[in-house]
Amino acid sequence: LDGGNLLLEKYFDTKRDLVNKALGEYLDPEDRYPETLHKAMRYVVLGGGKRLRPILMIATYEMLIGRKNSQRVQKILPAACSIEFLHAASLVHDDLPFIDNANERRGKPSCHKKFGNAIAILTGDALIVKSFETLMKLPNQKKALACMEVLVNSASTRGMIGGEVVDIISSPQRSKLHILRDVHIKKTGALLKAAEQFACILADADEQTTNSLTDFALNLGLAYQVIDDLLDEMGEEELLGKEIGEDRRNEKVTYPLLLGIEESKKQALKLINDSYNIIKHMSNNQVLVEFLESLRDRIP
Amino acid sequence: LDGGNLLLEKYFDTKRDLVNKALGEYLDPEDRYPETLHKAMRYVVLGGGKRLRPILMIATYEMLIGRKNSQRVQKILPAACSIEFLHAASLVHDDLPFIDNANERRGKPSCHKKFGNAIAILTGDALIVKSFETLMKLPNQKKALACMEVLVNSASTRGMIGGEVVDIISSPQRSKLHILRDVHIKKTGALLKAAEQFACILADADEQTTNSLTDFALNLGLAYQVIDDLLDEMGEEELLGKEIGEDRRNEKVTYPLLLGIEESKKQALKLINDSYNIIKHMSNNQVLVEFLESLRDRIP
Repeated sequence: LDGGNLLLEKYFDTKRDLVNKALGEYLDPEDRYPETLHKAMRYVVLGGGKRLRPILMIATYEMLIGRKNSQRVQKILPAACSIEFLHAASLVHDDLPFIDNANERRGKPSCHKKFGNAIAILTGDALIVKSFETLMKLPNQKKALACMEVLVNSASTRGMIGGEVVDIISSPQRSKLHILRDVHIKKTGALLKAAEQFACILADADEQTTNSLTDFALNLGLAYQVIDDLLDEMGEEELLGKEIGEDRRNEKVTYPLLLGIEESKKQALKLINDSYNIIKHMSNNQVLVEFLESLRDRIP
Repeated sequence: LDGGNLLLEKYFDTKRDLVNKALGEYLDPEDRYPETLHKAMRYVVLGGGKRLRPILMIATYEMLIGRKNSQRVQKILPAACSIEFLHAASLVHDDLPFIDNANERRGKPSCHKKFGNAIAILTGDALIVKSFETLMKLPNQKKALACMEVLVNSASTRGMIGGEVVDIISSPQRSKLHILRDVHIKKTGALLKAAEQFACILADADEQTTNSLTDFALNLGLAYQVIDDLLDEMGEEELLGKEIGEDRRNEKVTYPLLLGIEESKKQALKLINDSYNIIKHMSNNQVLVEFLESLRDRIP
């Protein structure tokens, strides 16, 4: 693994612009009735965000088809945006007073702070539906159905929503490493897994590649979360977009809390190396490799 | 229109059993991790309910295929249950303290009263996902995709969720009949429309029949709501399953409030007659006709 972040940043910026434009087009305009709901949806989705999941999906797709092809990427944007809508839905509901009670998101008032709790609940609901609606826009019906299976699994009680529930009901007193791992595999891992599996379906990847990239996604999701925990404990507020120590004040169980800081760093590095080992022999893997390098560089 | 409610009741009971059994099978067992979430989902869905939407879908399907065929009905149960899951999701979120603040549902503590607000929010989310998941179980992929389009439309900001938002933001001061009508068309009508359109897709109905039955659903949805409003104002608590006058205490705008009781009754009767006129020339329409009669008899 070796540096090269300038090119990676440019790649991410280009794809982010593409995704942001598509997200804006799939969402209803603000002046469409009922305006409050459409305003809230646009506020939540278009108010920033790294677009990690859609961009990783596009990068994996381009790796698999072996070249950059803007026309083909245009056709898979419904799948990329579908994941982002589902992600946005989970953030809106997670931020609610009964769950994480977060007043801010990406440096701005969270949805319920801006629009009230009732509208925030329905905005999250509408974004879940928007996620399915957008996926249906894939031009290939057979692939749309296969992606739908993936999306349902990723969102379900076996995936993202299950992870959120376990996160709520687990408390520091009774939490164990395997529970924390399970929460992260489901909450962060599920949608990264969906991103990789979408890419495989859309690029007609074989089963072995799909299985490998599913493992890649799960390792990556865990690595991401361990690093997030570490940054929250030690890192730069600006980088993380939330106040340092927030997890601790919320009495959230984190990797540093359970494993200590040094062991958590080792775990993060191991997970990134495991991810690297999965893709190192694949052709055209430059973007993903550089992404892993940039992630490794985030370990504080 | 003439009576015959005993046979209708038997028909509804039989189909309700069929739907309840399928709902129970599609839901995860209570002892599956995370147990709290699966318990809450089963509590909400299996704790009673008329199953109006799925049964109307099945009745319409049987009318269209021209005979009772239990094997074919078995195959369309995913579509019937999908609508019910979406309906259940909307009830859980509507009952939350910020929206309708309803402590009871079907004579038992509402989901958030029983499981807490956080779990209730995620239970509603999980039921939306379950609705899509279940629809994917339809054996015919082409029809599954066509139904998916219908479901997305019915749930979206143009349908059910849009109606809920308008319901929240409209208040007695500024409410007008066309707004109330719009709320009901979206909140109640959208899923009845989905039921009729599912039946049409699954029975290979032609476009004209589909359009007629869509109108039938919208008339029926409005009739149902006007009668519900009337019963709330004047009717029997037991029949309605909520305390009488609840709508008024919640300062909800209702038909009797805007039109007066007598005019509301006239409207309900007119809507039922309009529904009848749409289906009166269709073959094998007995169940639907009897259903309209039973609805007419509910007008207080």
